[in-house]
Amino acid sequence: MHAIHQYQEFFITYLENQKINKEPKNLYEPIDYILSLGGKRMRPVLTLLAAEIFDTDYKKALPAAMAVEVFHNFSLVHDDIMDDAPLRRGKETVHEKWNINTGILSGDAMLILAYQYFEQYEPAVFRDLAKLFSKTALEVCEGQQWDVDFETRKDVTIPEYLKMIEYKTAVLVAAAMKMGAIIANTSVENANLIYDFGLHLGLAFQLQDDYLDAFGDPETFGKQVGGDIIENKKTYLYLKALDFSSAEEKEQLIELFSIPSDDSAAKIVQAKTVFNTTGASEATQKAIEQYTFKAFETLDKMNIAEDKKTILKSFGENLMGRKV
Amino acid sequence: MHAIHQYQEFFITYLENQKINKEPKNLYEPIDYILSLGGKRMRPVLTLLAAEIFDTDYKKALPAAMAVEVFHNFSLVHDDIMDDAPLRRGKETVHEKWNINTGILSGDAMLILAYQYFEQYEPAVFRDLAKLFSKTALEVCEGQQWDVDFETRKDVTIPEYLKMIEYKTAVLVAAAMKMGAIIANTSVENANLIYDFGLHLGLAFQLQDDYLDAFGDPETFGKQVGGDIIENKKTYLYLKALDFSSAEEKEQLIELFSIPSDDSAAKIVQAKTVFNTTGASEATQKAIEQYTFKAFETLDKMNIAEDKKTILKSFGENLMGRKV
Repeated sequence: MHAIHQYQEFFITYLENQKINKEPKNLYEPIDYILSLGGKRMRPVLTLLAAEIFDTDYKKALPAAMAVEVFHNFSLVHDDIMDDAPLRRGKETVHEKWNINTGILSGDAMLILAYQYFEQYEPAVFRDLAKLFSKTALEVCEGQQWDVDFETRKDVTIPEYLKMIEYKTAVLVAAAMKMGAIIANTSVENANLIYDFGLHLGLAFQLQDDYLDAFGDPETFGKQVGGDIIENKKTYLYLKALDFSSAEEKEQLIELFSIPSDDSAAKIVQAKTVFNTTGASEATQKAIEQYTFKAFETLDKMNIAEDKKTILKSFGENLMGRKV
Repeated sequence: MHAIHQYQEFFITYLENQKINKEPKNLYEPIDYILSLGGKRMRPVLTLLAAEIFDTDYKKALPAAMAVEVFHNFSLVHDDIMDDAPLRRGKETVHEKWNINTGILSGDAMLILAYQYFEQYEPAVFRDLAKLFSKTALEVCEGQQWDVDFETRKDVTIPEYLKMIEYKTAVLVAAAMKMGAIIANTSVENANLIYDFGLHLGLAFQLQDDYLDAFGDPETFGKQVGGDIIENKKTYLYLKALDFSSAEEKEQLIELFSIPSDDSAAKIVQAKTVFNTTGASEATQKAIEQYTFKAFETLDKMNIAEDKKTILKSFGENLMGRKV
């Protein structure tokens, strides 16, 4: 086993060797561009980690890890078009740097390229990986559609919100880990347990994203603090605050999150105050802990050595304690 | 073996049973919509036909045929966004009826759904089908990118144009047929020969599309006759006309195809006159014949009964003689 930062390095070295030097340039350059923008590379690292947890050399998992990362970046390219986002990781988004048509078409090509990485495995493994990948990719599309639908709905419930982030974010984390298990040819039970581990960790991860977006340290948090509040995004914090509010407070909060604000700083302060006084902040932190704990529970049932469980647990703890 | 119109009916019956009654509605309704708009269903029919040519019941080929049709419609949805097309088969395009974001996301889901249809085959067949599909799908993306690139280029050569239509159109016809061969578990030689048959027939088909767009009978041709001329599309007819022109004629033709026309009818007449007088029309018809002939040549090498070859040949002849 290696340290997480080592898996990151292994993956980045592999990724840098995957540059596509093919025509037409207008199709492939945007792909190399988005893949080179960086990021934590959490999902592919989890594929490598999972393979080694189940006693298989991480090298064998590199193509599947790459498929996961290419797919994740495909979804970013298309989501950025839908959100009309100008920046991604501090750099121009693909549709800004090129144009919307290039964003659509290069994204399509990435989805196909992701599948092609599975061709490096033998037929039975290829089939298992591609099946899991298709199921997951479709769920990510469904999650994105729910997210779009929720923007114009005023009656989104907390269970609906949790289902949305499960599909949009958590299933890919779960699938990334299960792919490592499939490549390692471990038992179906272990593979399903690591999927559940990833799913709960993915949910905790997204809820923490919601939390840090409002309460993160501007010094260390990568994105603009309060971005969700400015955009009137109905995150877990918001939905919990509504849940805990009196009728009057509820009205005020709905009003605050229904109009564009001309004083962003004041709006952020106001929203954060409501999140704190209603107990929504605390409830969110508790939910993060609970999902992390649920992830750890799956480890009890997993048939692997104790030191391997310790590695997964400490990864989860690090993720929970993250500030970025 | 059955008649072509029977394969069409078999496929349409199967297609109608595939309606997706799933949430979120905004993701799946556009998919059912575009798939129900009709069309000749040529590609899936070729998959069924190819399976029976190699002595396998067409029923076994239905899921693969469906994958091909879903993919083809995915490419139409995304292409229509890129071309800003209001109509498809006389009905509103997906991005017109819903919006661009829905068009992008539903298209993405269709690409994934296409892969899922291959899951109905055993691992080795699944792998062969998915591999051929990925290679083909990526080529279709490349073809579409070339097509976009050519719009703003004035120096497109005929070989470049032929490569573009090969990727954008012909490879999918070829792959549709090869999938039938893979499912029928015929020899690698036969599978490659039917691919070449489809590829050349696909090229003839696209060149004929170019030809009919200008010279089709308005009574029977489905689309607006002269549409390519109005849109200044550099088709085979146009490139051949340039090729056969004197320096002076060349200048006139480039001028004619570089400005929006306020008198479409006059422009169409003018362009068609040039296509005829330069010999471009004749050269296009000749190219169609040559590609059809090349397709027929592959049949000589194919290891199947003579009556099967006759069926493929008569399909090709019908396609060559089509008016729509």
